[in-house]
Amino acid sequence: MKMLIVYTYPNHNSLNYAFLQNVIKGSKENPHVKELQVLDLYDEGFNPLLLFNELKRRRDMHTDPNIEKYRQQLTWADKIVFIYPIWWGRPPAMLLGYIDQLFASNFAYKDKKGYFPEGLLKGKSVICISTMKGPEHYPLFWLNNAHKILMKRALFNFVGIKKVKFFEFGNMESPRGNQMKKLDKILNYFKRL
Amino acid sequence: MKMLIVYTYPNHNSLNYAFLQNVIKGSKENPHVKELQVLDLYDEGFNPLLLFNELKRRRDMHTDPNIEKYRQQLTWADKIVFIYPIWWGRPPAMLLGYIDQLFASNFAYKDKKGYFPEGLLKGKSVICISTMKGPEHYPLFWLNNAHKILMKRALFNFVGIKKVKFFEFGNMESPRGNQMKKLDKILNYFKRL
Repeated sequence: MKMLIVYTYPNHNSLNYAFLQNVIKGSKENPHVKELQVLDLYDEGFNPLLLFNELKRRRDMHTDPNIEKYRQQLTWADKIVFIYPIWWGRPPAMLLGYIDQLFASNFAYKDKKGYFPEGLLKGKSVICISTMKGPEHYPLFWLNNAHKILMKRALFNFVGIKKVKFFEFGNMESPRGNQMKKLDKILNYFKRL
Repeated sequence: MKMLIVYTYPNHNSLNYAFLQNVIKGSKENPHVKELQVLDLYDEGFNPLLLFNELKRRRDMHTDPNIEKYRQQLTWADKIVFIYPIWWGRPPAMLLGYIDQLFASNFAYKDKKGYFPEGLLKGKSVICISTMKGPEHYPLFWLNNAHKILMKRALFNFVGIKKVKFFEFGNMESPRGNQMKKLDKILNYFKRL
């Protein structure tokens, strides 16, 4: 298994970074994970702004040389792990901009007749690890599960990725959040994945 | 009424720009709109990346001098009109980054006991005009209304803005979309607002 971790948090002195460390640690002890790459979007200085105009056509986005290396990375990976906080019910602009830029027509999907396109990233699987300040069930009960629906149905399923697993950790800024327990959970999950 | 239009689209040769022009035109013919400001996020080169670390504390975001003028603009406005496309079921990263940056604690809301904070932007109202390639009812039936839920419940209601109106225009890349009819609808709506 070739694993790509896409990490999105501005600060390395953080719980999100601790989750990243445990994903890496667990994966390195896992004999099924043959190769591992980490993309730290903030550290990388990734440009999250999709731009197109008369000179740079939207239809050519799938060959944009500025993000060629990120497309290659995505193509290379069998499993993609996203680690991010939930801000305003959804991932930070940085991660959504990575998606705006990368998941272009004729790279991630191909339009065909009917409502749904052909997913070009099929065969891959995704794990989303997200942290929230609010309680764990808030997104489900109060927000109609909007975060998962957007990531799974509006995005990953659309590009052919059927296997999407979520870890949504709530109360992460309070003692009730049991951060250590969640960190252990992730470490053990990636050891045995 | 003091109106702020926040426009998010990379290309001025576009349907979104035509909507912007009609919002401006209609508002200028509307005697209730006393003052009008337009913030074109792409043209402005707005930095959508929320950054905090040991030197730049998250708790101080509400006084970040780099975005002081945008906070003043938001404070000034009675009504805020957002014009944007729907990408992957939600607004582009640029607009969500404007939100990540601007809607800081102690500017947009104030934490208090219980699950919900005190909204500090109360009294304002919002209109969201969005365009989609897909059919109009796709977000409601297929995505659990995720776009509206995120904008209204997870964001605007949270900061005290109760009045939120949506225009979600679907099929905007096909002849069935009746672009001219929708543009007229917006022109007339803003004339009489």
